[in-house]
Amino acid sequence: MDIVPITPEDFRRFWPEFEAIIRAQETYAFDPSMTYEEAYALWCQSPQRCFVAKEGEEILGSYYLKPNGMGPSAHVCNCGYMVSARARGKGVARALCEHSWEIGRALGYAAMQFNAVVSTNAVAVALWQKLGFAIVGTVPKAYKHGTRGYVDTYVMHKVL
Amino acid sequence: MDIVPITPEDFRRFWPEFEAIIRAQETYAFDPSMTYEEAYALWCQSPQRCFVAKEGEEILGSYYLKPNGMGPSAHVCNCGYMVSARARGKGVARALCEHSWEIGRALGYAAMQFNAVVSTNAVAVALWQKLGFAIVGTVPKAYKHGTRGYVDTYVMHKVL
Repeated sequence: MDIVPITPEDFRRFWPEFEAIIRAQETYAFDPSMTYEEAYALWCQSPQRCFVAKEGEEILGSYYLKPNGMGPSAHVCNCGYMVSARARGKGVARALCEHSWEIGRALGYAAMQFNAVVSTNAVAVALWQKLGFAIVGTVPKAYKHGTRGYVDTYVMHKVL
Repeated sequence: MDIVPITPEDFRRFWPEFEAIIRAQETYAFDPSMTYEEAYALWCQSPQRCFVAKEGEEILGSYYLKPNGMGPSAHVCNCGYMVSARARGKGVARALCEHSWEIGRALGYAAMQFNAVVSTNAVAVALWQKLGFAIVGTVPKAYKHGTRGYVDTYVMHKVL
């Protein structure tokens, strides 16, 4: 698996996965009806960095990295990760996350914060905890899950 | 005191207060060197709503309201409040906050979330708690305070 900066062509090939993830409304607080162009701007252009994990021509997953705040909070970064359905259970999320720490450290960040990890996303919550993230906050009913109704979100944090 | 939608002229008159607040680096995770144009876009244009509190021609304070997330989290709003130095201790923050609940409810929001209340901002923390906000998270050392170094931030939440 190679993790490299995303190209417009990579995102075009990743879009069906991205679209399925946001349409499901189980993990991301993104507009489930956003267009391709809006998604490209949000995921690839607006953040500070965006990478893809590839195996040959197959896109296994992607993540972005950006500052979580400005000025006095610019030492904390924020990331979001997505893994293609066919590539799940193969350590892609872990590889992306560990890669993001290296990038974050190289950019001078002291910590990483996730603002809204959906509490019912047990696989992700368990992985982040295994990788050293702590749940530092629980926001009640902050996410309307596609099938489970209103569920809590977690704020998670790790020193880099 | 009247609380009304902000105009470009209102913000022009409020700017010295806004600038002093961000330069102090004690309360907002905003770039302390941002320009007038950047501040206007951030505070007045990018949010869903922006209001000022006025007494005659004097600007007492201002707040913005915006969605805290998209799609499945679009039922939670976020606000930021600033009070002019000369108007502090007169109930302006409380009036702005209570006004924002009415606006938030009218726009269909079910809850309000503050993402990064600086823990050393004791007056604000105490007021928000008095007004029904709960501390639902504590992010360690997420804010580099102008004089106190790295301090925690709180996530605060209230059902509308």
